[in-house]
Amino acid sequence: MPKIVDHNERRDHIAEAVTNIVIRDGFDHVTMREIAAEAGYAHGAIARYFPDKQSILSATFVRVYTTSNERILAQVDGVRGLEALNRMCSVLLPFEQKGANESRVVLTFWDRASQDPALQSIHQQHITQRRNLIRRFLTEAAEDGELASHVNIDVAVNRVSVHNAGWQMLAVLMPESADDASLRASIDSMIDEFRRGDRD
Amino acid sequence: MPKIVDHNERRDHIAEAVTNIVIRDGFDHVTMREIAAEAGYAHGAIARYFPDKQSILSATFVRVYTTSNERILAQVDGVRGLEALNRMCSVLLPFEQKGANESRVVLTFWDRASQDPALQSIHQQHITQRRNLIRRFLTEAAEDGELASHVNIDVAVNRVSVHNAGWQMLAVLMPESADDASLRASIDSMIDEFRRGDRD
Repeated sequence: MPKIVDHNERRDHIAEAVTNIVIRDGFDHVTMREIAAEAGYAHGAIARYFPDKQSILSATFVRVYTTSNERILAQVDGVRGLEALNRMCSVLLPFEQKGANESRVVLTFWDRASQDPALQSIHQQHITQRRNLIRRFLTEAAEDGELASHVNIDVAVNRVSVHNAGWQMLAVLMPESADDASLRASIDSMIDEFRRGDRD
Repeated sequence: MPKIVDHNERRDHIAEAVTNIVIRDGFDHVTMREIAAEAGYAHGAIARYFPDKQSILSATFVRVYTTSNERILAQVDGVRGLEALNRMCSVLLPFEQKGANESRVVLTFWDRASQDPALQSIHQQHITQRRNLIRRFLTEAAEDGELASHVNIDVAVNRVSVHNAGWQMLAVLMPESADDASLRASIDSMIDEFRRGDRD
């Protein structure tokens, strides 16, 4: 886990405050004044931890990704192959309202990262971790004989990755198409595709 | 086609200028002054066509979506079923550098739409058009006997939709994973999945 937020409750609390503002009001409302109000700190206290808005954003990025990675690792503990992949996707997809709120933050992060090399680099590290995990689960599935013979792991890593990313957008911008049953059916059909060949 | 941009070269030209600024400098640099400079018009000329930034953004959204819808319709003319779906995805996925530039605009639009009900409504109309088209192609595939029996069309519409959306993100934020061969393999494996059942 990146050390930038760990063991630093105040920094973490500030990053959490930023996340809350993005969810509630949108990124444009993230100002030092708003952050201080949301976190319940004096304006000067924020500056003591983070010299500028950029550094707060980086910490917020890291916090959101670290939190979801921890949730994934907790879910896949002792599990491997397609079941682990299923659980990972279930953590990442925007189930329930909580998930859609997080997707809103994710959409904002993507846009900010596309305009800022430092944020893009943080984003890239975390995406790469996720992709490595997807690859591990698919490789385990192959080792355990549960992966369909037609599945190319490189292609499948991309397909799982874009599947999970695309749902973030749909949950925010087409919420009526992103009910829990639709998310579940989408994961199941993808996993089933990877598994299906065995019954051929 | 929405009448808001059609038969109005100047408005279209202004919307194009906004797109260019977003691609080159990011959304934060979209100001009335920059738009005037990019379009080569006097500042007052912009205001004559668009009373405020919001109305320019709406026009820019509509222009980007209309342009890609026209490209899709040109590609699928006289084609149906899975071949039409393949062609549609090939238009929408960010092939070559041009595609990645457009994806950058798309990412910005998603974020702006998530924070603005008027833009979200425009976005939703166009996504709905796309989803209806996906559904039409899958339904044709079923009618023509080329759709695998295991494919649930509702689930498949979502999966195609999130597949295409997810690639926009990957092209911008993980460009090294979004080369043309990877995009092509991803589309092919998805289409193959829809078709595969016939050979079971």
